[in-house]
Amino acid sequence: MYRSHTCGELRLTDENKIVKLSGWVQKIRNLGGMTFIDLRDRYGITQLVLDVESRKDLSTQARQLGREYVIQVTGKVAERSNKNSKMGTGDIEILVDEFVLLNPSDLPPFTIEDETDGGDELRMKYRYLDLRRNPVRRNLELRHKLGFEVRNYLNKQNFIETETPVLIKSTPEGARDFIVPSRMNPGEFYALPQSPQVFKQLLMVAGFDRYFQIVKCFRDEDLRADRQPEFTQIDCEMAFVEQQDILSTFEGMTKHLFKTIKNVDFDFDFIQMTFDEALKNYGSDKPDLRFDMKFVEMKEMLGQTDFVVFDDAEYVGGICAEGCAGYTRKDLDKLTDFVRKPQIGAQGLVYVKCNTDGTFKSSVDKFFDEAKLAKWAEAFGAKPGDLLLVLAGPTDKTRKALCELRLEMGNRMGYRDKNKFAPLWVVDFPLLEWDEKTNRFHAMHHPFTSPKKEDLALLETEPGKVRANAYDLVINGVEIGGGSIRIHNDELQHKMFQLLGFTEQDAESQFGFLMNAFKYGAPPHGGVAFGFDRLTSLFAGIDSIRDVIAFPKNNAGRDVMIDSPSPVAEDQLDELNIELKKAK
Amino acid sequence: MYRSHTCGELRLTDENKIVKLSGWVQKIRNLGGMTFIDLRDRYGITQLVLDVESRKDLSTQARQLGREYVIQVTGKVAERSNKNSKMGTGDIEILVDEFVLLNPSDLPPFTIEDETDGGDELRMKYRYLDLRRNPVRRNLELRHKLGFEVRNYLNKQNFIETETPVLIKSTPEGARDFIVPSRMNPGEFYALPQSPQVFKQLLMVAGFDRYFQIVKCFRDEDLRADRQPEFTQIDCEMAFVEQQDILSTFEGMTKHLFKTIKNVDFDFDFIQMTFDEALKNYGSDKPDLRFDMKFVEMKEMLGQTDFVVFDDAEYVGGICAEGCAGYTRKDLDKLTDFVRKPQIGAQGLVYVKCNTDGTFKSSVDKFFDEAKLAKWAEAFGAKPGDLLLVLAGPTDKTRKALCELRLEMGNRMGYRDKNKFAPLWVVDFPLLEWDEKTNRFHAMHHPFTSPKKEDLALLETEPGKVRANAYDLVINGVEIGGGSIRIHNDELQHKMFQLLGFTEQDAESQFGFLMNAFKYGAPPHGGVAFGFDRLTSLFAGIDSIRDVIAFPKNNAGRDVMIDSPSPVAEDQLDELNIELKKAK
Repeated sequence: MYRSHTCGELRLTDENKIVKLSGWVQKIRNLGGMTFIDLRDRYGITQLVLDVESRKDLSTQARQLGREYVIQVTGKVAERSNKNSKMGTGDIEILVDEFVLLNPSDLPPFTIEDETDGGDELRMKYRYLDLRRNPVRRNLELRHKLGFEVRNYLNKQNFIETETPVLIKSTPEGARDFIVPSRMNPGEFYALPQSPQVFKQLLMVAGFDRYFQIVKCFRDEDLRADRQPEFTQIDCEMAFVEQQDILSTFEGMTKHLFKTIKNVDFDFDFIQMTFDEALKNYGSDKPDLRFDMKFVEMKEMLGQTDFVVFDDAEYVGGICAEGCAGYTRKDLDKLTDFVRKPQIGAQGLVYVKCNTDGTFKSSVDKFFDEAKLAKWAEAFGAKPGDLLLVLAGPTDKTRKALCELRLEMGNRMGYRDKNKFAPLWVVDFPLLEWDEKTNRFHAMHHPFTSPKKEDLALLETEPGKVRANAYDLVINGVEIGGGSIRIHNDELQHKMFQLLGFTEQDAESQFGFLMNAFKYGAPPHGGVAFGFDRLTSLFAGIDSIRDVIAFPKNNAGRDVMIDSPSPVAEDQLDELNIELKKAK
Repeated sequence: MYRSHTCGELRLTDENKIVKLSGWVQKIRNLGGMTFIDLRDRYGITQLVLDVESRKDLSTQARQLGREYVIQVTGKVAERSNKNSKMGTGDIEILVDEFVLLNPSDLPPFTIEDETDGGDELRMKYRYLDLRRNPVRRNLELRHKLGFEVRNYLNKQNFIETETPVLIKSTPEGARDFIVPSRMNPGEFYALPQSPQVFKQLLMVAGFDRYFQIVKCFRDEDLRADRQPEFTQIDCEMAFVEQQDILSTFEGMTKHLFKTIKNVDFDFDFIQMTFDEALKNYGSDKPDLRFDMKFVEMKEMLGQTDFVVFDDAEYVGGICAEGCAGYTRKDLDKLTDFVRKPQIGAQGLVYVKCNTDGTFKSSVDKFFDEAKLAKWAEAFGAKPGDLLLVLAGPTDKTRKALCELRLEMGNRMGYRDKNKFAPLWVVDFPLLEWDEKTNRFHAMHHPFTSPKKEDLALLETEPGKVRANAYDLVINGVEIGGGSIRIHNDELQHKMFQLLGFTEQDAESQFGFLMNAFKYGAPPHGGVAFGFDRLTSLFAGIDSIRDVIAFPKNNAGRDVMIDSPSPVAEDQLDELNIELKKAK
């Protein structure tokens, strides 16, 4: 037996017990004939005391020790003279009687502390050491708890967790597939799933009624800062449901998670905001509703002005930053620089200070007198002391820039508290979006999404205006999940493939089995998928998903710890009937 | 809303309620002006009654219906005149008032009944219809429940479920890897994990203390009847443990599963049988202990005989089949044919009937008189009425054949009841096994398995005799799980790689990161992995794992439903920097 207790377990009530502990040496201090060791494991830290003065043997052993050595000790639990109320075990210490060195340690390349001196690359290379750090390990513990509670909730709701295959079939639609050469079927390949979409739909055809799975998915994309080639979805599907049934079920799940994990009560129905509203009011289909600061559209109010920037603009709109009229020239210059950054792309920023004395001061005083600015203030619902920030330009682009400005102001004004949560459903997404590059419609969600019944007639005439039974769960400006009611009728599905530019042959070879399945009594169904990495990072209060993944890959898709991907032996390729492309 | 209740829910207490149901048409019967429909969903079957005589509209609709049509009905719950006690809903029926056809169905290619007329290939091609059948769906529901209870148990025991990567690195050791070309790293490949072995060990180095994961693993093997290229493991690892700690924890899990899922109580400690004992007594490292019929070794007792078959044999041993002395010539011929089958490989079978009158009759009467046979009977503990079956030959081969004979007799004698469960741990496996083909030692378990401390000295002198801290959980003759205490010392690990014929360079390039991790305070650790497919099939009482997998592949590794693997587009290979091998 390596231990009788963990390092986080002992209390004053255990006084005088003889215990055995194992763990890592966090810290060693020598103090007048005594050596104090902080012994650490996953569960906590316990202070060990070695009387090196009277016990020469212990003294010798203690002298060998260094940080991260693994030791086992036996000793008596004693009350501490100077207690540490910050630690669960802070009332006691162990008077060590026996001592075993289980494994020494080289000096770690960075400190194993909450705040480490290790840079990102180093931490990833030695991820097994990085994972020893409390904040990283706690994220993974949180991930475990979230998964556990998701399953608890869905199990109670009669969902069946069903594994779908990982070795499936490549479909050129959407992002790039990772593919896997088949040795037994020369010249043929499996693909790794970008999502279990068609399988979960087949499970509905199979009458499984309620399916879920916490499942790895794969996308061979050029990785942006916060994308991973393999990621995890909470994937769900239900039969005999309408949109509201799904929203209710998963709003319930979200509330369950917040209650059980963070003790947050949402004792209200989540807002359901249409895609159009979201864009109009917040310039984004994932608005951060931790604060209001809704867009005010000004074009109509303005009418014809002498200010050519406004007159030429398709869109003029702004936000009201409460109590920010005191912003200095420098503050405002910084904001102007912010909106002009290439990734934001506004031409400039118009501001109006609603001074506390009732006067106005704006960057467009030349064009708009106090009376006109007062009218603006009224439209914005601004009070003395507030600051109006206005952008102008093409509608879509300007809304997007204004959204960024709103979020920036939210940050500056302290509205984006990581411990506050503002969930909403965004609904009524467009079914299709026009792709300039390929000059055809793409499915906004995926080709299995059902159009709204009331918009069906538009499919022939104005496909771009058709709304879908599609919805996203957004929390704090982050898309946590999304889904749709699916098409369950093979004719409508055929028409969708047509609209999306599939040839009859392509549709058949890629999705023939699904079309075929729809011929045998497919029930109405729909579902949703949550980004498990993203959900966990939201709960952890961190921005990157990388630190909620035990062994993430870097932006080049590499695992720098195991040094993968890597070349493979020639005969391995031979067996698989492939070879590397010769340089030309 | 598509339904107010499921098809398995309504009882007599719901009488007179107006309800809405949705589901599939299982059966239609016309009876004197009434049409009866069995409406089916995952939860059960409810009888619908359509008064087609007085309601012409319903009559028209009902006439369109066929098997597997999806319909929605509204009606009143009524008491049945002829109740069906076999169905939960058997006391009631629905007097249908409204009727919606949700989706028609082509005639299914096989009947959706518990016993179907569909052959294997057809069922796999239309798996979504096969999954509608109760026995198949129940297996998947069982799988869900098992996974859920595994998680419940391990969560209570402080295990953290942690996802390890699927895109990892190819290592030539062991079975063949599936590999995945990397687009972003031309000429390099990921591999799919055969198990998360090294990652779970790294999580122990990381101080995670207790890890588990229900996880897909991959092996590119030539598939035997009951192998799948992707399969699921319950993968577990613990730090600061000795072998007995792990056995206790997972014996607890096994008991929990049997109790919660099958209401079976194991109120005893599982037998721990050494590998040597298992081979000696049952000729297998996975003995079926639902019945005893232990081997009796006879060589010593026999001494020198006149029977050259015994005298020349390295091994002579047999089993006693209780009460089988009445076997006819024909029965015994069949058994002789059985042991002579090439896959069993015995030369012949010696039998001794212990007649109820106290006499003996054997196939070797010429060589052994009654007194000698009486001595045999005594050695076997045989009573009058029993039958002794004896094989002779080389030890390993003969034990194996005798094992098969024992199982065959177990079948014939009804000892192998699928509702009886006999668990045991097989322990003390050899560390290494000699491979005749490559003329070197292979790791019996895997290269990270720790030798027993007391056998360490033999590593240099007689490596083949070293026993490992390795163990298997065996139930009813099936290996359900296996694991080992791992090496946590980098020197010992290096020595193991040496013994296994790794060059320094190979060990470094393949497992350098693990060796390196061991330098930073690796704790003692060990673990176990259970075959989740196998476990589920054991609980389901079926022999094949295929029917506990939602979408299995056939013996050629093909998914015949989605027709995968399949060729991919040339430009997809181009992007991945590979090409198909040209025929030479």
